[in-house]
Amino acid sequence: MLNPVEIILKKRIGNELTLEEMFFIVNNYINGNVPDYQMSAFLMAIFFKGMSKQEIVNLTRIYVESGSKIDFPKELKTVDKHSTGGVGDKITMTLAPIVAACGGYIPMISGRGLGHTGGTLDKLESIPGFNTFMTEAVFKEKVLNHKLAIIAQSADIVPADKKIYALRDVTATVESLPLICASIMSKKIAEGSQNLVIDLKVGSGAFMKTLQEAEKLADLLVFIGESFGQKVSIVFTRMDSPIGYAIGNALEIKECIEYLQGKIIPDIDKITKTLAVEMLKLCFSISEAQCVLKINEVINNGTALKKFEELVSIQGGDPNIVRNTSILPSSKIILNIVSNQKGYVININSQQIGYSLIKIGAGRTKLDSPLDMGSGVYFYKKIGDFIEVGEIIGEVHCASEKAGNEVVQDILNAINISETKVFEKKDVIIGIRNVLNQ
Amino acid sequence: MLNPVEIILKKRIGNELTLEEMFFIVNNYINGNVPDYQMSAFLMAIFFKGMSKQEIVNLTRIYVESGSKIDFPKELKTVDKHSTGGVGDKITMTLAPIVAACGGYIPMISGRGLGHTGGTLDKLESIPGFNTFMTEAVFKEKVLNHKLAIIAQSADIVPADKKIYALRDVTATVESLPLICASIMSKKIAEGSQNLVIDLKVGSGAFMKTLQEAEKLADLLVFIGESFGQKVSIVFTRMDSPIGYAIGNALEIKECIEYLQGKIIPDIDKITKTLAVEMLKLCFSISEAQCVLKINEVINNGTALKKFEELVSIQGGDPNIVRNTSILPSSKIILNIVSNQKGYVININSQQIGYSLIKIGAGRTKLDSPLDMGSGVYFYKKIGDFIEVGEIIGEVHCASEKAGNEVVQDILNAINISETKVFEKKDVIIGIRNVLNQ
Repeated sequence: MLNPVEIILKKRIGNELTLEEMFFIVNNYINGNVPDYQMSAFLMAIFFKGMSKQEIVNLTRIYVESGSKIDFPKELKTVDKHSTGGVGDKITMTLAPIVAACGGYIPMISGRGLGHTGGTLDKLESIPGFNTFMTEAVFKEKVLNHKLAIIAQSADIVPADKKIYALRDVTATVESLPLICASIMSKKIAEGSQNLVIDLKVGSGAFMKTLQEAEKLADLLVFIGESFGQKVSIVFTRMDSPIGYAIGNALEIKECIEYLQGKIIPDIDKITKTLAVEMLKLCFSISEAQCVLKINEVINNGTALKKFEELVSIQGGDPNIVRNTSILPSSKIILNIVSNQKGYVININSQQIGYSLIKIGAGRTKLDSPLDMGSGVYFYKKIGDFIEVGEIIGEVHCASEKAGNEVVQDILNAINISETKVFEKKDVIIGIRNVLNQ
Repeated sequence: MLNPVEIILKKRIGNELTLEEMFFIVNNYINGNVPDYQMSAFLMAIFFKGMSKQEIVNLTRIYVESGSKIDFPKELKTVDKHSTGGVGDKITMTLAPIVAACGGYIPMISGRGLGHTGGTLDKLESIPGFNTFMTEAVFKEKVLNHKLAIIAQSADIVPADKKIYALRDVTATVESLPLICASIMSKKIAEGSQNLVIDLKVGSGAFMKTLQEAEKLADLLVFIGESFGQKVSIVFTRMDSPIGYAIGNALEIKECIEYLQGKIIPDIDKITKTLAVEMLKLCFSISEAQCVLKINEVINNGTALKKFEELVSIQGGDPNIVRNTSILPSSKIILNIVSNQKGYVININSQQIGYSLIKIGAGRTKLDSPLDMGSGVYFYKKIGDFIEVGEIIGEVHCASEKAGNEVVQDILNAINISETKVFEKKDVIIGIRNVLNQ
């Protein structure tokens, strides 16, 4: 007879748990036989002792099988993208319409912002009427008929992860690599995605600080995907400054629409197209050059923007936003960020900026905290850019001048300036690990 | 504003908590504002990251102040003993009456058996009628009038430790040195003991496997005691075989009575007298020789046994047991342990013996499991003794022949025999750290 205390102890000592033991503790937690306090001690033991690859695959399987799994016909070659999270990361909103416009089917279960990183669902919900809650049947129908839908994790999809994630959030056990892997991958498997591209952020503003750490995580994610017959490619992207110019829910939606309308935003463009190429390569037997051609075509001829409008429309949002972004929530107060230094930007602490935005409601520290959808920041400078004293380098959009001024100050503090240009600008894409080339 | 998640995180990272932070999380746990699941994650983080000396003192103080503290007049020079736990450890029952008969005042809060170690309270409760529950007022009155009382931790004494200990027991967080220290010392301080002698067990059968580890624990215990104005002496005793010949609740009480009646049991005698000397030295300004003289006198003239009878009587037990031990619970079945080997005993796995006894109800794995008070083992051999094939080396007392035979087998497996005598017998006392000589 298995015993939760002995299973916790076994993990605490650092021994590998069997599938049976893992199943016992997780499933009994879900059905209420193992109390929260045993699960949280177990999670903290996992935080310190880690998990073997096999344990992570087992946990992922238990997560997936705790709820319903959506299946799409094999010939559809469904594909999804996951980002490990960055400040100003709005790439889902530019990428998914492009890939869908190119013929890809994207069944996407997405997440919310927490701490310094924003969440795709929050951003989409800043669109008036946009609904991220639907049954699996409706979700499946939308993907089949419209090629994409982006929803929140329902109560039926990986409920084990949902319950355990909520506990991790309040017990300081979120930052555990094995738990993060199982959490990400279980959702990406249960949603029915046959192919997956992971935007793995690396750098000072990311969870993975070095490429070496990131490559270990990549190994793990590819291994888990393979164990479930899912093809996983990894794009390593540099996370040393916010992505694009806008940070904040509605501000980012506006920026995505502008990009799809043809505005040139170099880092968004580079990340979006790189990820889109990898997604299309996984789905279709076409060359990289063909992918690029197709991607540029759907942006230039407006079908990508049309796809975005369709996404908004089928999920209950106001499709007019693609023509009139002033429908989006906005802030009463706009404060300029005026530089007090002169020189080249050598470093931006985007994590610090992300945390600062919590002060004006553009982010949150608890999953159930409300957001101010219209608040946020425009920050025009990238690493390597030159700044003059007195130059307006950004704007803070907010409801409270006091909090807004604090954010202005935080952002000025978050940038590091050098009088001499000490380096070359680095490509935002660090490397690609394409499962097809392995 | 303090936040439990941030406090857990701070400990998880390994940073030292302030008194304020420690107070916040423990007190809010006690009053129900911090839930079990946050406390258990916190305890597991402590298990892995440890605590500084100052943190342990702070936790001990918070524990002590969570309930009532008993105070005795300073001139009484109250003294207590704590043992870190061993198989067959019945020394409290021989020691306390002797020290009380010599004039010491002993206010003792004691514990129950768990895992391989027995508990003083369980042993005393095998005496028909013996009651270990009383209010602090009654306890204090008994100590003042009769010089000793041995009780269980009441709801008012260190309730924080009581609640946290119960949680540790079910979350695999018992074996944490800082938590053990705070747990032991808070009770020994709250009970009003001005002096304390710790019987620190060292060896294969103890929690501390090496003298080096034991000395670190000793440092900590002395430091905590000092922080509360309590004088602490340490006696390091070898724990490589069960203490005395009897293991099991009523069997051990019987052995203690026999010892106090004058029976010669070398290891019990050595440990009891060594601890008694240290306790008397802490209380009275007398030499070691004077202590020994007094101790031998109260054993030889029967006043120590009389004190034991008095203890039993004032706590509601049947005082006739000191004249007629057959009143104690006993077992229907007695199985001989017959040696199947010949040679010198070179090793006894007393931990294995302790765990085996759980099978016949002489021990327990959970604090609320029932005990068979009459069950247990007599084991006549010590390390260095010679054994013949076919020699009866012990007895198993039990209610079930099947379980009893398993215990017989376990005990035969727990002893290691060599054909040649390869070593000298070692003294059971390894060393003494007397606070007065420092």
